[in-house]
This record gives sequence, structure tokens and C-alpha cells, in this order.
Amino acid sequence: MPELRKDPIIGRWVIVSTERARRPDQFLDNFPKNISEEDCPFCEGNESKTPPEIYALRNNDSQPNKPGWELRIVPSIAPFLRIEGDLERRGRGLYDIMNGIGAHEIVIETREHIRNMADLSESQISKVLTCYIDRINDLEKDKRFKYVLVFKNHGWSAGGGKFDHSRSQLIATPVNPKRVKEELAGSRAYYDYHDRCVFCDLIKQEIKSQDRLIVDIDGFIAVAPFAARFPFEVWILPKKHSCDFTSLEVPMRAELGRILKIVLSKLKKGLNDPPYNYVLHTAPFRRQKTGYWKSVDHDYHWHIEIMPRLTRVAGFEWGTGFYICPFTPEDAAKFLREVEVG
Amino acid sequence: MPELRKDPIIGRWVIVSTERARRPDQFLDNFPKNISEEDCPFCEGNESKTPPEIYALRNNDSQPNKPGWELRIVPSIAPFLRIEGDLERRGRGLYDIMNGIGAHEIVIETREHIRNMADLSESQISKVLTCYIDRINDLEKDKRFKYVLVFKNHGWSAGGGKFDHSRSQLIATPVNPKRVKEELAGSRAYYDYHDRCVFCDLIKQEIKSQDRLIVDIDGFIAVAPFAARFPFEVWILPKKHSCDFTSLEVPMRAELGRILKIVLSKLKKGLNDPPYNYVLHTAPFRRQKTGYWKSVDHDYHWHIEIMPRLTRVAGFEWGTGFYICPFTPEDAAKFLREVEVG
Repeated sequence: MPELRKDPIIGRWVIVSTERARRPDQFLDNFPKNISEEDCPFCEGNESKTPPEIYALRNNDSQPNKPGWELRIVPSIAPFLRIEGDLERRGRGLYDIMNGIGAHEIVIETREHIRNMADLSESQISKVLTCYIDRINDLEKDKRFKYVLVFKNHGWSAGGGKFDHSRSQLIATPVNPKRVKEELAGSRAYYDYHDRCVFCDLIKQEIKSQDRLIVDIDGFIAVAPFAARFPFEVWILPKKHSCDFTSLEVPMRAELGRILKIVLSKLKKGLNDPPYNYVLHTAPFRRQKTGYWKSVDHDYHWHIEIMPRLTRVAGFEWGTGFYICPFTPEDAAKFLREVEVG
Repeated sequence: MPELRKDPIIGRWVIVSTERARRPDQFLDNFPKNISEEDCPFCEGNESKTPPEIYALRNNDSQPNKPGWELRIVPSIAPFLRIEGDLERRGRGLYDIMNGIGAHEIVIETREHIRNMADLSESQISKVLTCYIDRINDLEKDKRFKYVLVFKNHGWSAGGGKFDHSRSQLIATPVNPKRVKEELAGSRAYYDYHDRCVFCDLIKQEIKSQDRLIVDIDGFIAVAPFAARFPFEVWILPKKHSCDFTSLEVPMRAELGRILKIVLSKLKKGLNDPPYNYVLHTAPFRRQKTGYWKSVDHDYHWHIEIMPRLTRVAGFEWGTGFYICPFTPEDAAKFLREVEVG
């Protein structure tokens, strides 16, 4: 059973998972060997190579865990957290610990062996977004979970696995992650002072200045954030205020699919298919019922952060928690604006 | 001039530096080509390839910036922060910004082309530690600076540069880094409740349980931290309470050199010379004079964190701020205890 352990100084939770490696030498030389496409467990026809599906978009005449699908969600074969059991919160001397309970699901975004989400159609990307919403809503019903993180690791140095079939991941956690709490607390402090949402203000300023604006379509903007951690970091923000990604109306899902495809295509073409992570930032579950997060609906604003992984995070970043970005967001925005795509 | 920019939501500072890369294509394919040792600017005889030295341990009859030294400190040739100028704190719409003022120094730990600090003698490592103390004390005199971070990037994927000559870095910052503040705040909260230092408690528990203990010598212990972020992460802690690394007495510097050599040698031998970062965690400057950090002397405890970089940080970590460690600290400690060194 994986464990959730809390650092007694910083209060940071760590998942100590033993599912993925058991011997020290497994950490050495871990770059993947050549893997043939036929072995890819995520391609249509290879359904038996994954755990049974949790969710799928299928042709009417197809059977679960057989060909005939457009999108499948399966449990991770090496989950960081386990779905069965109770948290059993406990102490061990001065340390705090709980069982590593949670859900870890893989969203297989296409039945074909397409490597980069940029190469999916807009409508396929919208379907992926809809399935995120369906899964988040379903996982919210499990009272053990407080948050679902939706993210993507594209490419080896961004944490991608040995098979490069386009997919994303959902992890439901039994605690609200530190980073999420910090964002909620920061947004609330701004709202308390200004009586305005910091993200709404940011969107207005970025549209007006144009300095860091990359794409501006009906419903969404893509910008290089003012205090980017990484060169070519991009945030996609909905113009309409909402703290909750799952409230996104169907027509806006198509729009989000459109801007996501534009941004990912610009990164792919302009930067030679770089490794990247994207992370959906949305409000936690059941916020209305807990006093602390009651104000989230007006102070927080969901968005997507895309981080190309072109630089290496080093001692300075680990030691200070502040980042060095060796390329200005203004230059990055200018560069990405000028990359012409589809 | 580099800029310090503050994320308006999280409050995280980022250094936007333009010294290291000016064109997008410089980020592509940045793994170093074969570089010959003769070109190494850090070897004795090549002093003219670095900026003029700030500090050196030299033979009595040698001249500055000439051969005849044991250890040299030079400004970084591509500094993240600039030493000249004022901070000029200002706003830009909703954003906060200041000039990227600071110091960025390179500690050349040996005149020979030795790659890993593990291969320096104990006494040479002690000299490196003494020079950290001297430089921190000197940088404290500059009232613009609030903190000095001392760290090391060993190996390419840990952020090491293209020359692999053993060295470490000091960066003096005009703001207290977020990570440092979090550690101080966490230690204070523990002290406020327990009237004890959390690190002193941790040291007692680790010595008693032995589960995560790697080395125990007079004056110091090395442990695998309970909530390790990375496989084989090691913390070195002084048994005697002190918040301030610069207060380390001379005999204890020899002891610290000894334990550092043992730990780095165990990592090198046991894990095939892995990339790693180490970071010195010590109290900020002038803490007595500012109410907020007044209690640091009793609640905080300096230490060194060593992080082998065998895993890749991915979307989940960026999105949540919590880490997945795929190897238990107990197994890591057992493994490292059993690696026999010199």
C-alpha cells in the first residue's frame, strides 16, 4: 500500500509509492529503449493490454474492452495511489501519515498511435475535455477525495512514459494539494482587498497591453504569464469568470478544444515538438460546504497551465522555490504569435 | 538587466534573466557536446578564462588570478542577478517587479579537474565549507540582500553546466525566498506548540528508530527524510541546535567535511555517480532586527539537503506541489548504509 507522508517542517505531502521500482538499479539508465508501435497498449486492438476500462466513447455496436472506440479511460497499471481502503490517518512519532488512497486513471485520447495532442482534431480534443468533466464529476461522489488533478506529461523529460501514445492522466487525492491551497489563498487575498478576481483583472490587462498575448478567440485567451517559471510557458484562461472547469458549457468546450490545438501546434512547430506538461487548475470539491473555501466561487478562476520543459530545474529552484526563466515572456509571446499553424 | 517578477496569484518570485539565451533555438538540443579538459576554465592555469577572483586560498608567493591556489571564488560569467544597481521596486498594472539585483558566485572547489566533490579530501571539503561561511558573512554586509543560497548542481540533468569541474554556487537574493519562508514558518509553528525545535525532535527520533539513519558521527547525522521527495534523498543535520550555518565552529567544519564526503561517496559508489543537487538551508540575514523572524534562533535548525536526480518531475508535481517518491526512505537508508566507502 502506498503511503502519504507529511514533511513535518514544510507540511508538504509526499506519496511514497512502491509500485514502480523495487531495486535501486532500476533508477539507473532509465531512458527507454526502442519500443515498437505494435506493442503499444493504448492502440485500438490492444485493449487486453490495459486494465478494464472505466469509461469509453464507443460505437453503438462495440463491446467494452474491444475495438470500436474513440476514447478510453483505464486505471493506471502502476497507480501512485490505490482506490480500495480507508485513509487511516495516524502519527508515527512526530510524523503524520495516511494510506495512499486515491484514483489514478489514464485518458487514452485516441485509438490511433498519435503522439502529440496537437495532432488530434479540435473535435477530438473537445471530447477529451468532456470526458475530464465526466470523470471529475464521478470522482467527486467519492467522499474520500478532495481534489482531482488533470494533467499531461508529453515527452520523456516531461515525465512521459515509455509509450508515446497521446494520453493524459487524472489523479484524485484525499487531501487538497499544497499548490492548490496556495492558489486559492492568493486569489482570496486579492479578492478581499480589491473585491475583484485576480484572474479577471489579469485577463483584462493582458488583452489591453497585448505584450504577452498569444491567442485571443471568442471565450478564451492564451498568454505567456508575466512571472513565467519556464521559457514558453503558456496559460489558457476562459474570459468568463468561473472557478469550476466542470461548469464549462458544451459550446465553450469546442472553443477550448480550438485554442488548445492552436497553442499546442504552435509549440510543436515553433520549438520542434518539445516535451511539455499541462495541468488543469480548478476549484476543489465540496467547497460550498466548508467555511474555508466558501468564497472560492467568486475569487478563483479555473485555467490551464502549459509548461514546455526545455530547461533543467536545479539546486537554486529546489532551495528557494523561486525559478529562473532565461527567456522573457514577452519574447516568448512574440515568437509564438508568429508561428503560423493550420 | 534581469528582472524579479512576482506571480500575482501565488506570490512566487521569478528571475527573468536574459543573460543565458537570446534565441528560441538555443533551447533545442542543449545537451553538451564533448568538451576537452584543456578548455576547462576552472582548472589551474586557466585563470584568465574566468572573471577576476573575489576570494581565493592561495600559496603565499602566488598572485591573484594566477596559478598557485587551492580554491577560488569568481563571479558567474552569466549571472542570474546583477550586483550593480538598486532594486527600484515598482508595479506594472497588477504586477509587481524589481530589478534583478543580487550576487551570483562560483566556488571552484579544487584546482585539479576533479568532477565529483566525493573525490575531494575531507580537509579540502572543510575548506570549501569555510569559504561558504566567509562569503555569506561578507555578503550579509550588503544591506540590499536578505538571503544567500548555497547550492551545487552535479551532473547535466541536475542543472550542471557543460564543464564538469567540481564547483558550487552562491546566490544572494534581495527577497527572502518563498521556500525559506515556508520552512521558517513551519518551524515556528512547531515551536509555538511544542516549545521544542522540530529538527531537534526529528534528530532524536531518527537516532532512536534507526530506520532512516544512514550515518551517525560525532556532531552530525545523515538520514533519509521521512517524507523524501526523491529516491535516495539525504539530509545532513548538526546534532547541536543552531539556526545559522555561519556559526559552525572550526572543529565541526572538519566533521561536516567528513560526513559530506561519506554521504557523497556512498551515492557515487552505490548509484553509479548519479546527478544530484545539494542545498544549504540556513537562517536569513539580520533576523534579530525584524520582528517577524525574531524567534528563528530557537525554532530553526540549519541543515543540508542532498537530492539525487534519478526521477523526472512531471505534471502531477507541478500541479499539486506534492511529490511522488517511488522508493521508500527506509529502503534507501538501508541501501546506503550498506555501501562501503573509504
